[in-house]
Amino acid sequence: MPVVRLKPKAEARAIRHGFPWVYSDELVTDRRTQGLTPGTLAVLEDGERRALGLVTVNPKSKIICRMLDRDPEAVIDQAWFEARIARAEAMRTRLFDAPFYRLVHAEADGLPGVVIDRFGDVAVVQPNAAWAEAHLEMLVAALVAVTGVTSVVKNGSGRSRVLEGLTEEVAVVRGAVDGPVTVPMNGALYMADLLGGQKTGLFYDQRPNHAFTARLARGARVLDLFSHVGGFGLACLAAGAESALAVDGSAPALALASQGAAAMGVEGRFATRQGDAFDVLEALGTEGAQFDLVICDPPAFAPAKPALEAGLRAYERVARLAAPLVAPGGYLVLCSCSHAADLSSFRNASGRGIGRGGRRAQLIHTGFAGPDHPMLPQLAESGYLKALTFRLDG
Amino acid sequence: MPVVRLKPKAEARAIRHGFPWVYSDELVTDRRTQGLTPGTLAVLEDGERRALGLVTVNPKSKIICRMLDRDPEAVIDQAWFEARIARAEAMRTRLFDAPFYRLVHAEADGLPGVVIDRFGDVAVVQPNAAWAEAHLEMLVAALVAVTGVTSVVKNGSGRSRVLEGLTEEVAVVRGAVDGPVTVPMNGALYMADLLGGQKTGLFYDQRPNHAFTARLARGARVLDLFSHVGGFGLACLAAGAESALAVDGSAPALALASQGAAAMGVEGRFATRQGDAFDVLEALGTEGAQFDLVICDPPAFAPAKPALEAGLRAYERVARLAAPLVAPGGYLVLCSCSHAADLSSFRNASGRGIGRGGRRAQLIHTGFAGPDHPMLPQLAESGYLKALTFRLDG
Repeated sequence: MPVVRLKPKAEARAIRHGFPWVYSDELVTDRRTQGLTPGTLAVLEDGERRALGLVTVNPKSKIICRMLDRDPEAVIDQAWFEARIARAEAMRTRLFDAPFYRLVHAEADGLPGVVIDRFGDVAVVQPNAAWAEAHLEMLVAALVAVTGVTSVVKNGSGRSRVLEGLTEEVAVVRGAVDGPVTVPMNGALYMADLLGGQKTGLFYDQRPNHAFTARLARGARVLDLFSHVGGFGLACLAAGAESALAVDGSAPALALASQGAAAMGVEGRFATRQGDAFDVLEALGTEGAQFDLVICDPPAFAPAKPALEAGLRAYERVARLAAPLVAPGGYLVLCSCSHAADLSSFRNASGRGIGRGGRRAQLIHTGFAGPDHPMLPQLAESGYLKALTFRLDG
Repeated sequence: MPVVRLKPKAEARAIRHGFPWVYSDELVTDRRTQGLTPGTLAVLEDGERRALGLVTVNPKSKIICRMLDRDPEAVIDQAWFEARIARAEAMRTRLFDAPFYRLVHAEADGLPGVVIDRFGDVAVVQPNAAWAEAHLEMLVAALVAVTGVTSVVKNGSGRSRVLEGLTEEVAVVRGAVDGPVTVPMNGALYMADLLGGQKTGLFYDQRPNHAFTARLARGARVLDLFSHVGGFGLACLAAGAESALAVDGSAPALALASQGAAAMGVEGRFATRQGDAFDVLEALGTEGAQFDLVICDPPAFAPAKPALEAGLRAYERVARLAAPLVAPGGYLVLCSCSHAADLSSFRNASGRGIGRGGRRAQLIHTGFAGPDHPMLPQLAESGYLKALTFRLDG
């Protein structure tokens, strides 16, 4: 087993206290280490040659080591994967009454860079780190053994794979997937295209925010902006909304949303409008449209630090354009999935936008990603998803 | 109507954008203003004598003006109170299926310094600002007219009244209150002593955190530290916990918790232990006791800035003592109701304590006060209640 070593002055305390990464400037990167194949397993030592644990090394990544096991003698075999997956599953089965959830959320579930979403009998694996790509067969075998899923999709797309030097690939690696999968959540039915959709075809992270929003929806006219496959809108219809209008730039996503509405038998109360959400917001403003509940769940406007200022301006603009569409005493839900925009910055941008939209507001709820998206406390500052529910003046 | 005026250099922008207070160093406090009776209504003007709204003035308070109405010509009569209360009620009836909630949450509900909790046919009013004390009869008449409650308790206790120069008083001002009130919440029954209890006898703010915790409770052995009348423990029993042990320093609170358990028919699974929670934590540690779910909901250890460092050490100590009591793979819920300890500081203190207690953790949920405790976006930094749910290693 190769050995890699922290620089003499590098601080091993964070690692000892559970921080899961070593950055490349903290490691002795001699020629031998630089020559390791991405995904190689190695023993990490501190500056005094004391073993800290078993890591995976990727000399091409800024995150050069990821901690796999605090036991430097751990064996990464199928049983090791099974134990991690079973531990993750135990928490989800306690919380959810049907097998539709994020089963493994990377570092926080002890499988660095590995994301697994479960859709009933189908699981979608995102091996977003080189070691996971290298161990994919073993990981999939363990996944099938623990959960009993009959089909497994490998979703090898997305930005983090590029940083690890991995290529794009989407493939069915076990069983078969035939058309969209029906996903029950919060009383609604969603259609998830596990082969062609964004990410894994459905975002489980917003589940508790869908649920809270749905509590406000009884009898309401709902506008769901950046709707994807209808996350907020269909949950609101399930909770008794009078109508829901879903707006998205993607025609395939809206088609799936309409299929979900049809499966629920609420297609008569559901409408879609394809187009750029900002354009639609401005058009609705010009039309003088009013809704009792408006939800804006845009893509990450500030995915990383350099985009922060522009991103916050975009969030403010969304709020400014959406606020006038909310009927007196109605509700406005504003979401951000930007790592770089922390809760306080996002809340301030939203508050400014509402004010510039000519409204005053109470903040009645702040929500984050659901519990199937756990965090390591050491990485909790970067909790990416925020959902703010405002009640506007009337 | 008296007029008060911001100092020429004082910034009126925050007020214009919805900030509800003027601090004493921002106001021209000539002899005439200083002579105003606490609670006097006045028109607030900016440095250029433009009216900003109708305020209440208390020359004895650091918060010298509180905004009552953006319309400087507003008339504060019973109809004005009825409109504010009806607006607050509309949001609560949308969210809750029974009239048990915080009905008015002060500034955010447009009634500065006024807190009203509803317990079915009984309401408890906390007039925590001088103007509310002065207008209490009108406020109570409006409350009865809008909600139809038959009894109203005035709860004039607590720190904020002292800052306003008000005296302590608890009295039934309408109807009658005969013994504890039974409060249904999250499937549990709580006994609230509206005349003798802490604050208004029951804390509604933790409702969503009780609910989330209860989802983890099926078959679990639960330890509820600083239990008050059994908030977390009884919700867990309602959700199928195997047992719950409630620990509190107050014998009357524990007696009410036991009455709640009896009303639910779960007294066989419920036990109490009176004593200092730190002492009990240490004793349980010595006994080697293990629980699947441990909740710590202490009083504010850091109510204000000067107490912050000592408060964070106390939160860390709670976490350090509680973590070893959690069975492998079990859950730990840590709460703070300290204004001064923000989310990040509290999370760090909790994480450190868990680590020093010899455990590693995932953070699976971050919760705040429920939606019947709205905030003004401008004051949201000071959101006091935080509840963190960790899953521990095992």
